[in-house]
Amino acid sequence: MPFILPKLHIKIPGWVGSFPVRYPEPIDTPEKRMEVAIGLSLENVKRKNAFGQPGGPFGAVVFDENGRLIAPGVNRVMAENSSVLHAEIVALMLAQKKLGTFDLSFGGTRSLALYTSTEPCAMCVGAVCWSGIEHLVCGADSRDAEAVGFDEGPRHPDWIREVEARGIRVTTGLCRKEAAAVLRTYVAEGGIIYNAGGHSPNRG
Amino acid sequence: MPFILPKLHIKIPGWVGSFPVRYPEPIDTPEKRMEVAIGLSLENVKRKNAFGQPGGPFGAVVFDENGRLIAPGVNRVMAENSSVLHAEIVALMLAQKKLGTFDLSFGGTRSLALYTSTEPCAMCVGAVCWSGIEHLVCGADSRDAEAVGFDEGPRHPDWIREVEARGIRVTTGLCRKEAAAVLRTYVAEGGIIYNAGGHSPNRG
Repeated sequence: MPFILPKLHIKIPGWVGSFPVRYPEPIDTPEKRMEVAIGLSLENVKRKNAFGQPGGPFGAVVFDENGRLIAPGVNRVMAENSSVLHAEIVALMLAQKKLGTFDLSFGGTRSLALYTSTEPCAMCVGAVCWSGIEHLVCGADSRDAEAVGFDEGPRHPDWIREVEARGIRVTTGLCRKEAAAVLRTYVAEGGIIYNAGGHSPNRG
Repeated sequence: MPFILPKLHIKIPGWVGSFPVRYPEPIDTPEKRMEVAIGLSLENVKRKNAFGQPGGPFGAVVFDENGRLIAPGVNRVMAENSSVLHAEIVALMLAQKKLGTFDLSFGGTRSLALYTSTEPCAMCVGAVCWSGIEHLVCGADSRDAEAVGFDEGPRHPDWIREVEARGIRVTTGLCRKEAAAVLRTYVAEGGIIYNAGGHSPNRG
């Protein structure tokens, strides 16, 4: 029997591309860059699907050294039926597609940053290490995510040191209060803490 | 300035879809299922790109409870310029796309398995936990991957126990010898151990 592969076309809504227009470039402070990631996370919650379900409350952005926005990302797990599509993964995939490389460090000559509205889960910590990103900046932390029912997965207990040992700087807790508020908004808006079946709580 | 998002269309070569045809379904033993994953890894090495570079030596397959093949995957990192596209990620994305769900457990009612030619890296361990897969089966182990220069990334030191704690069975070392041989073939064929910039060795 011939085996038909489905097409892997990942749809990113147009608003994700137009959203950053509100922020004139270059975006010159870490706080303003994080504001874009948090803004994306909130907008993703507001954009409900046909069943009234908000999108996952997670946003991420890749910036270059000068604060120019390379690529935004939002959680697309439920929208695209793909458990891989956390905000960080979407931003990294878009950035690599845009720049035409699987190595955002360009052989160690560039220093791009990934800003994420919530600390990365186990999967995204690994993805960051393979991406060529030089600086990871996080808003809400794992306590905030877990407080509303999300799970970081089997992350290395000393993940920050592990990531830094690979030459990637890590900053946590930037605009944590504002980022954590979006997680609570998601729950208040009826967002489900989606599960991976009979196994564990999922997140994005 | 309007921001143009690139299209996230991931190309999977036609041979990946036709490859499983050589294995009549249902594929009824664990060894035969692993043979498909290892076969994909070897075929990916043989299919060199325009620059004579072999594809990453990694293959993975999602099977249903009865040994029917749901989706194959091969490493597409260099081919698609995307550090996320390890074989396991490709197989999981294709399986979820095909079945129209981000939860391959269908709410805990199904028990799909992911066979992978080499133990998953840090990113893929996380991805497995979010996928809804109920059984992870691995061929070559981390020692085999590291022996040729690949890196598993910042994986949890007790990752198997962590994954099993989430209701996912883990089997390691199935057809390890045959799987490890493909890693060595990759090196012999001139395959590069690609790097994520100035940071750490990458893998797939």
